[in-house]
Amino acid sequence: MKAVYITRREHFNAAHKLWRPDWSEEKNKEVFGKCSNKNWHGHNYNVFVTVKGVPTDETGFVIDLKDLSQIMKDFIVEPLDHKNLNLDVPFMEGLLASTEILAIKMWEQIEAPIAEAGGELVKIRLEETENNYVEYFGGKDPF
Amino acid sequence: MKAVYITRREHFNAAHKLWRPDWSEEKNKEVFGKCSNKNWHGHNYNVFVTVKGVPTDETGFVIDLKDLSQIMKDFIVEPLDHKNLNLDVPFMEGLLASTEILAIKMWEQIEAPIAEAGGELVKIRLEETENNYVEYFGGKDPF
Amino acid sequence: MKAVYITRREHFNAAHKLWRPDWSEEKNKEVFGKCSNKNWHGHNYNVFVTVKGVPTDETGFVIDLKDLSQIMKDFIVEPLDHKNLNLDVPFMEGLLASTEILAIKMWEQIEAPIAEAGGELVKIRLEETENNYVEYFGGKDPF
Amino acid sequence: MKAVYITRREHFNAAHKLWRPDWSEEKNKEVFGKCSNKNWHGHNYNVFVTVKGVPTDETGFVIDLKDLSQIMKDFIVEPLDHKNLNLDVPFMEGLLASTEILAIKMWEQIEAPIAEAGGELVKIRLEETENNYVEYFGGKDPF
Amino acid sequence: MKAVYITRREHFNAAHKLWRPDWSEEKNKEVFGKCSNKNWHGHNYNVFVTVKGVPTDETGFVIDLKDLSQIMKDFIVEPLDHKNLNLDVPFMEGLLASTEILAIKMWEQIEAPIAEAGGELVKIRLEETENNYVEYFGGKDPF
Amino acid sequence: MKAVYITRREHFNAAHKLWRPDWSEEKNKEVFGKCSNKNWHGHNYNVFVTVKGVPTDETGFVIDLKDLSQIMKDFIVEPLDHKNLNLDVPFMEGLLASTEILAIKMWEQIEAPIAEAGGELVKIRLEETENNYVEYFGGKDPF
Repeated sequence: MKAVYITRREHFNAAHKLWRPDWSEEKNKEVFGKCSNKNWHGHNYNVFVTVKGVPTDETGFVIDLKDLSQIMKDFIVEPLDHKNLNLDVPFMEGLLASTEILAIKMWEQIEAPIAEAGGELVKIRLEETENNYVEYFGGKDPF
Repeated sequence: MKAVYITRREHFNAAHKLWRPDWSEEKNKEVFGKCSNKNWHGHNYNVFVTVKGVPTDETGFVIDLKDLSQIMKDFIVEPLDHKNLNLDVPFMEGLLASTEILAIKMWEQIEAPIAEAGGELVKIRLEETENNYVEYFGGKDPF
Repeated sequence: MKAVYITRREHFNAAHKLWRPDWSEEKNKEVFGKCSNKNWHGHNYNVFVTVKGVPTDETGFVIDLKDLSQIMKDFIVEPLDHKNLNLDVPFMEGLLASTEILAIKMWEQIEAPIAEAGGELVKIRLEETENNYVEYFGGKDPF
Repeated sequence: MKAVYITRREHFNAAHKLWRPDWSEEKNKEVFGKCSNKNWHGHNYNVFVTVKGVPTDETGFVIDLKDLSQIMKDFIVEPLDHKNLNLDVPFMEGLLASTEILAIKMWEQIEAPIAEAGGELVKIRLEETENNYVEYFGGKDPF
Repeated sequence: MKAVYITRREHFNAAHKLWRPDWSEEKNKEVFGKCSNKNWHGHNYNVFVTVKGVPTDETGFVIDLKDLSQIMKDFIVEPLDHKNLNLDVPFMEGLLASTEILAIKMWEQIEAPIAEAGGELVKIRLEETENNYVEYFGGKDPF
Repeated sequence: MKAVYITRREHFNAAHKLWRPDWSEEKNKEVFGKCSNKNWHGHNYNVFVTVKGVPTDETGFVIDLKDLSQIMKDFIVEPLDHKNLNLDVPFMEGLLASTEILAIKMWEQIEAPIAEAGGELVKIRLEETENNYVEYFGGKDPF
């Protein structure tokens, strides 16, 4: 009836590089520039997860933020914080560690747990620096 | 023709608790956790109000920000700033003081005044902390 | 298939006034208030440009941020930074220097270059102060 | 030899009012304005604690940030978060709940635990809103 | 006995240029670069004023923030907001409109009013952009 | 006569780990916790450099910010941005990559170039996350 969108932020610090193992170092450097530095670089990532729903009569909540925070900690922060996105993260194995791909894979991790907690995941916003971020709506096209 | 969305921020500081008077203190504590502290806690709230429209030929404005700011001060800041959301606010009487409910009730306060000023209210974003906020589109579902 | 939205921020510092040359100083003052100060005032503007696309298999990118940043520098920062929006900017000539109009004109500058770089411009967000910003979706109405 | 200053931020949300029980409601209102609202208001407080020291040869640390964070959680966040500064906090009993007094009392709570962890507390910065904060140096006068 | 430092932020939007009338346009351009643009540019300035004192027994305040805010509005915001620093501000007449000079001149405006309100001005911090600011301690040298 | 302090911010993104090669992996893990992850992690670092001086009569500057920014780019950003602090940075060779040590080493890089540009370096503030930063005054003890 009265859909409200609620968003929770968590953050993690990780290393990565933009790098294709099937390309030479020169080719990687040519395409990915300084992001291809072979010894890695890293970021403080902020991730914002948005859940849509109607506030319940019992609690006035769309989803309990304690539950949403716990899901984000279990499925995003725990596997990514103080890790190497190319080497240490099972769900990123064999993938390019771009912000775009990372946001898509995060969606796959948390969509079901959020549904089990009674919420509908509608958006992930992943900030890599204060100057760039990506948004992913599960493949939907809001604008 | 060329819809533009303009947003104004205002802020207020308020006390509240998440608390149902028809529940025991134990039940409130169980469901709402530390947010149920009987002696209250509080927040610095930021509220962002978005108005949609076509800039007029005369002023280049969707809505005069002085008017939008005044409406927000009269209908949101004045009744909420340095107040207790559970005890002091007529439009929250008998309601749970969750961020979700508060955003819905704010909409009801400012939709008509903004329409009278020639604008169309399309979004309220209410930040409770730097780690969580809600968005409300008047019940619409943009994503 | 899997649309992702990527956003880049750039900033510039400019002078402007809200002023119609076909109005008297009194009329300008009456309508535009202190924003009409004849000797100008200015702002630190932040501009966020959002591009939609599907990450390519080759790079994992929607658009190369180096390209997007360069386009924003060439078509927005270069013509606007340390300039007077009313006097120094060819694409603002004869127009009111409101945030709304400026965002619409920015769109016209960067839509084609972004398309040439393989991206689809879907949103410009232009912040004038920490308390107000406009969003423009090329005339579309996402909410 | 090479003194370095390290700072950790934690935050808490609390209710308070500026109120003297030995004054009438009118007198409280006259002196403390809207901050005296009898039903309380509240804030998102940020507290920054600065420790001075020489980085050790073994770790390169002035103090282990895990230890500093734990001390701040035990002695500041735990007693203050989601609490009423006037009613719920033993170390604020009988005191005015101004930002100044709160910063002085925080110092008393954490000076000894930080010394036990091998650090020297030199500054507390307590932010009440984005527009005001206090700094306390244990009574010292750096400027 | 227990000196505490309290800081209040206010902001204003102004136009300026770095320009010496006794130099040619070429010389101004050579020394001041794009900041010398003859048609001006501008900024959103944030100014933080710090007052030192001992909290009074009566109020727990170093200085009443309502008083400090009013002094800043009367002596800084009112003369500078939506103004041209080179043309519209009596206390900047004949001076270079650098951030450094502006901070020094602000000190002269507010030192006496703050003393009259019972406070001791000890620092002005003036932010021109998110990437640069100046601090002035009345000529003192804290570090 | 009238000392003013001017600060410039630059930023860089780097990988690192807290790790002693003369310790076992277990010992590193015990002391440095998750910061010792062998495959690295990383941060968006912000560095603020403060220069003290008297504004010159000619320019009103303590130091030309274009010069200060260039020095920071040449001696801090260039060697550190998109690099591994443990592996790629000559001036960090053989040292623990803690924020404290990094700030001390930065000082050594930029003190002389700033003096050559006519300024006096008095402070480096290095932010590792939004929750922790270090300050270094060249070994001096301002508080």
